Amino acid sequence: MTVITMTKSPIALVARDVASAVQWQHVLSVHLPNEKIVQFADLQSREKAAVEIAIVANPDPTEVAQLTNLVWIQSLWAGVERLVAELGPKAPPIVRLVDPELARTMAEAVLAWTYYLHRDMPAYLRQQKKAVWQQRPYVHPGRMTVGLLGLGALGMRAAGRLKDAGFVVKAWSRSPRQCDGVETFSGDDGLQALLVASDIVVCLVPLTCETRGLIDARRLSSMKEGAGLINFARGPVIVAEDLIDALDAGRLSHAVLDVFDTEPLPESSRFWSHPKVTVLPHISAPTDRDTAVRIVAANIQAYQASGIIPATIDLARGY
Amino acid sequence: MTVITMTKSPIALVARDVASAVQWQHVLSVHLPNEKIVQFADLQSREKAAVEIAIVANPDPTEVAQLTNLVWIQSLWAGVERLVAELGPKAPPIVRLVDPELARTMAEAVLAWTYYLHRDMPAYLRQQKKAVWQQRPYVHPGRMTVGLLGLGALGMRAAGRLKDAGFVVKAWSRSPRQCDGVETFSGDDGLQALLVASDIVVCLVPLTCETRGLIDARRLSSMKEGAGLINFARGPVIVAEDLIDALDAGRLSHAVLDVFDTEPLPESSRFWSHPKVTVLPHISAPTDRDTAVRIVAANIQAYQASGIIPATIDLARGY
Repeated sequence: MTVITMTKSPIALVARDVASAVQWQHVLSVHLPNEKIVQFADLQSREKAAVEIAIVANPDPTEVAQLTNLVWIQSLWAGVERLVAELGPKAPPIVRLVDPELARTMAEAVLAWTYYLHRDMPAYLRQQKKAVWQQRPYVHPGRMTVGLLGLGALGMRAAGRLKDAGFVVKAWSRSPRQCDGVETFSGDDGLQALLVASDIVVCLVPLTCETRGLIDARRLSSMKEGAGLINFARGPVIVAEDLIDALDAGRLSHAVLDVFDTEPLPESSRFWSHPKVTVLPHISAPTDRDTAVRIVAANIQAYQASGIIPATIDLARGY
Repeated sequence: MTVITMTKSPIALVARDVASAVQWQHVLSVHLPNEKIVQFADLQSREKAAVEIAIVANPDPTEVAQLTNLVWIQSLWAGVERLVAELGPKAPPIVRLVDPELARTMAEAVLAWTYYLHRDMPAYLRQQKKAVWQQRPYVHPGRMTVGLLGLGALGMRAAGRLKDAGFVVKAWSRSPRQCDGVETFSGDDGLQALLVASDIVVCLVPLTCETRGLIDARRLSSMKEGAGLINFARGPVIVAEDLIDALDAGRLSHAVLDVFDTEPLPESSRFWSHPKVTVLPHISAPTDRDTAVRIVAANIQAYQASGIIPATIDLARGY
């Protein structure tokens, strides 16, 4: 009989969704053959006190709290606002998933649904229902401004795709930023200037206490008559009731919504049946497990070799 | 009183649609200040016998036949199959509109509606009607093949946009052609090979006696289970009844149709209400009058200076 002595503490995998946890454990174990990846439920008490690294996907915060020796947390998601809120200010450093593939997929979604609005797909779908054959005026992308809210990794990549497609691109961020070939805005007045100028507004800001309710009745009333709105960020960035009012008043022509205050979107929501709303089930940029697992594995290997924690989120900013 | 003697014969503008003819006459006169552009109805008998150049947009063929001294015809449309059929084999040389802006707009439409299918927009729209929140599997564009039928100016430009977006692009043309980074096919067997391999098939071939009915029941049955089909070429390239059968049988998942055997699409057409069909009113690549008029003006100025007729269509091929 061979006795294997673990010299390293295991890495905890903490995920509310069991099926998802099983799949992650499998691919993470393949990419980290020298680590012991253990699901929270399978950890022994002694191990819980020894764990230094937790890999989390929508974890139960009470489980994370039981890992008393935790040095850092690797999130398998890009959006960590719920994690930050649930773990509170005493949480260990959190490393969010920064996956270039995620930025690629999101930029693809931004271009795809910008075309959806630019090429009048909602209007042609409405016409088809009534068997109406009517050509609508075509607007060259060079005469159409797409305004991006958020100019992080996702916003930068989306700006590039939109520019390549010939659109005029403007972008707003909390603090001033530069982006080649893009007119950038920041601060409160900057947001106003961006909304006034944009034919299509695309939300890509992280949800923080500063961006919650950012797009309210006042902001919506600043938008161009007939403008389109795409929300690929988080539901609470836009005040849902104010958005419905703006659509009903004819101020906005259409909204593409991928994120909501409550997900799945409750059956009672007015968004489902609103003729000027396209509802998507949070699919703009699904995590690609293949690329994500490589990034997480590299972060953990770098920490094990050097003791340096990868770049973590700023709890004060929330991302 | 000043008598103006015209040393040159006028250029005839022949268009069935009067409103359109008025607009074309205006912009053509601005860009060809040394020419006299006259609508057919305003030509005197003596002038009709002297006209060397006719600029046409869906003309009445009996009017064109009255221009007995015609040297060449400039079409304001890219598609000339109806013109060729109506004027017959004794028609003077026909110059079709080859507008790089048209190719840009068409390539944009190809990418926009490829994304429409790739990002599952028809399925999500169906789900929304039933308030169903269900994420569908995401397929990376690098694992998705778009097959182009037609590799002329439009096909080449579309191939470029699709490649840049990361799709695997294959293309078929009547006679063998090369295109960087695109696997190309030709002939009957080549068409079969392309259809078998493609997740989305995009029709961009001109309508000729060889492409009429090109996509029939046999060809549709070669396509991948669940493939999508986009027709931005001409209606008769696809056999309408065969397409409806293939959709009803579940062979194809969805068809985006911009062109039809009869346009406007008759109210009685089954396409209007088919849940797996998106009907568009021939809007994939609207002619941009601003760029088209410059190209036509340059053709006419070159002819007046040199006596050389611009590149004309091959009546035997039909384009």
